[in-house]
Amino acid sequence: MDEKQSSKTRGKPIKCRAAVVRQPGEPLVIEEIMVAPPMDREVRVRIICTSPSRTDISFWEMKDEPAIFPRILGHEAMGIVESVGEGVDEVTEGDSVIPFFLSDCGECVDCRSKKSNLCSNLPFKLSPYMPRHETSRFTDLKGEVLYHFLSVSSFSEYTVVDIAHVTKIDPSIPPNRACLLSCEVSTGVGAAWRTANVETGSTVAIFGLGSIGLAVAEGARLCGATKIIGVDLNPDKFEVGKKFGVTEFVNAGDCGNKTVSQVIKETTGGGADYCFECVGLASLVQEAYASCRKGWGKTIVLGADKPGSTLSLSSFDVLHSGKSLKGCLFGGIKAKTDIPILIKRYLDKELQLDEFVTHEVKFDDINKAFDLLIQGESLRCVIWMDK
Amino acid sequence: MDEKQSSKTRGKPIKCRAAVVRQPGEPLVIEEIMVAPPMDREVRVRIICTSPSRTDISFWEMKDEPAIFPRILGHEAMGIVESVGEGVDEVTEGDSVIPFFLSDCGECVDCRSKKSNLCSNLPFKLSPYMPRHETSRFTDLKGEVLYHFLSVSSFSEYTVVDIAHVTKIDPSIPPNRACLLSCEVSTGVGAAWRTANVETGSTVAIFGLGSIGLAVAEGARLCGATKIIGVDLNPDKFEVGKKFGVTEFVNAGDCGNKTVSQVIKETTGGGADYCFECVGLASLVQEAYASCRKGWGKTIVLGADKPGSTLSLSSFDVLHSGKSLKGCLFGGIKAKTDIPILIKRYLDKELQLDEFVTHEVKFDDINKAFDLLIQGESLRCVIWMDK
Repeated sequence: MDEKQSSKTRGKPIKCRAAVVRQPGEPLVIEEIMVAPPMDREVRVRIICTSPSRTDISFWEMKDEPAIFPRILGHEAMGIVESVGEGVDEVTEGDSVIPFFLSDCGECVDCRSKKSNLCSNLPFKLSPYMPRHETSRFTDLKGEVLYHFLSVSSFSEYTVVDIAHVTKIDPSIPPNRACLLSCEVSTGVGAAWRTANVETGSTVAIFGLGSIGLAVAEGARLCGATKIIGVDLNPDKFEVGKKFGVTEFVNAGDCGNKTVSQVIKETTGGGADYCFECVGLASLVQEAYASCRKGWGKTIVLGADKPGSTLSLSSFDVLHSGKSLKGCLFGGIKAKTDIPILIKRYLDKELQLDEFVTHEVKFDDINKAFDLLIQGESLRCVIWMDK
Repeated sequence: MDEKQSSKTRGKPIKCRAAVVRQPGEPLVIEEIMVAPPMDREVRVRIICTSPSRTDISFWEMKDEPAIFPRILGHEAMGIVESVGEGVDEVTEGDSVIPFFLSDCGECVDCRSKKSNLCSNLPFKLSPYMPRHETSRFTDLKGEVLYHFLSVSSFSEYTVVDIAHVTKIDPSIPPNRACLLSCEVSTGVGAAWRTANVETGSTVAIFGLGSIGLAVAEGARLCGATKIIGVDLNPDKFEVGKKFGVTEFVNAGDCGNKTVSQVIKETTGGGADYCFECVGLASLVQEAYASCRKGWGKTIVLGADKPGSTLSLSSFDVLHSGKSLKGCLFGGIKAKTDIPILIKRYLDKELQLDEFVTHEVKFDDINKAFDLLIQGESLRCVIWMDK
């Protein structure tokens, strides 16, 4: 978008197409909506590419709170700044940007600390509104409010995001690669790189080889791990995993009379240095913890279990093993610092992104993108908004 | 002990006095025993000072396995090397030494790593024998075997310890101060210093102000923590705690309609940077975890709960909080490296040890030392073996 185009729409509502979920689980309908101009410290973005993820599917299917309808889902995307609200000087019209779900305000004690990525000014919550002003920028053509999702709502040709939820990027990265860094790949790579801080020569076990687990493998590979063990119930995942550095596979459904942790302890000579739980099962966190090496093993939790579930560990093991357990949102990355680093590493041909994209569709086929994900056929399916 | 004295006993059994536990819970009886010469890589030590701890009490009272009788308890001491076995060149006759329960062989991958203090060559176990040769050096005058305890057995005028369980120390530290670094004070200080790595200016909450909890406070104070919150059911502990840097007290039994974690979150503006569980209750670990600050809070587990107990955490909290949980034995210290550092810090008047010693008794009064501990009247009661 050039300056001339922006000048036509700046400060005005934009009529555009969006995939609106009006009833849980029903096929998405692309309809015309109105996107209000950005308010103070907000940015209106023309989405170029977006990709659906499991979280979108969950909130599409979900019948009860925190689900809310009608809503515009989507939280992994790349776009171009159409216009900016007051008080925004970090990005400007025409900038290539990536929006993201976890605020990085840059001002609070968490954002200023190297140790946290959990912004205190705009803390993570499943709000249906813009995070700062707590209102919606979306209405349908009848004037009914459409709800936001995870501060992104990228299944729309235009969206509005808070300045704390968007980062400027090097425009030389292709949009269908950039969008992957908006959530899942950054989460997985970040968990290995920022949260676990995987050391060169170390051993890693990854529980669940979906796209986040594969991104953990990619992160561990970048960090120089020499043994990367993939654990999954589907043996087909091993071939996929090899592309991202997985060196060994443990079929969790076929360990004979051994547990997964016993197999991992044997192959690593006592346990992996780092274990990552990417499925979202408390029982699997226990197995990951048991698979870690005594003395320094770290278990990192990335998967979200169902609400109310509890994670149990043996008190004896916790005290006597010297192991640690840590959870992380967004892989522990600080979006505005780390996404640009990951983009550079992609452009420098270090970080692999191409291999994650198994499918690409046009916006009209968004339901096909959902189906591919639900059926486990796609890793990432990129949706091109203008094709 | 000078060279002349050693030359009289070297290579021969020594007859001396020891407090033997023959039946669980019965008063200790000081009787004459025989202490065999040290075998290969072992050291015979004349104990100068020792102090009983809760672990000694537990194994004195315990009726079932892993308890075993007749046994010589005691695992916190200072002594002088009487003689050494073959292959020992690290210490020599006349050296001042501290024995300790957790092996530091210096050779295995754990001992060579900065990240672990859990020796792989002689791993921690509740064996009644010497760790390397798996036999006893103690017999009574009828020739019956007396069992070892935690590789130390310091309630004896002479004991034998493996070279991996003893470190040479600066003899200028008084024996009744040195012995404190053999277990509890090192554990508490180490948990703050080595395991948590408490940063200057940070906030700390300590659950349980027994001698280990007070040692955590002392460690946190040394590390420069500015707010050190003591949590206990006994308000008298606050006055004691002040000596070791405790700045605020939370009476866990009198928080009104609030939980301890709510009180701590309020007084710290969101939660303590570091929480230490020093009691040994899984439920208290949960409260400590809840009291930690999101983003970077660390919960360190030092207390041993009863066998079979499990520690439960909310899966949601683990994932969304960014907090970490870690257990440690011996505070995570590497004994041969860290005990000499702590001694230097005591001699440099940085580390406080004097304040821990509330009572001193002669060996004949060892049952009084037990009583003082059981009744909660002593912090550390030092037993002088030759008085």
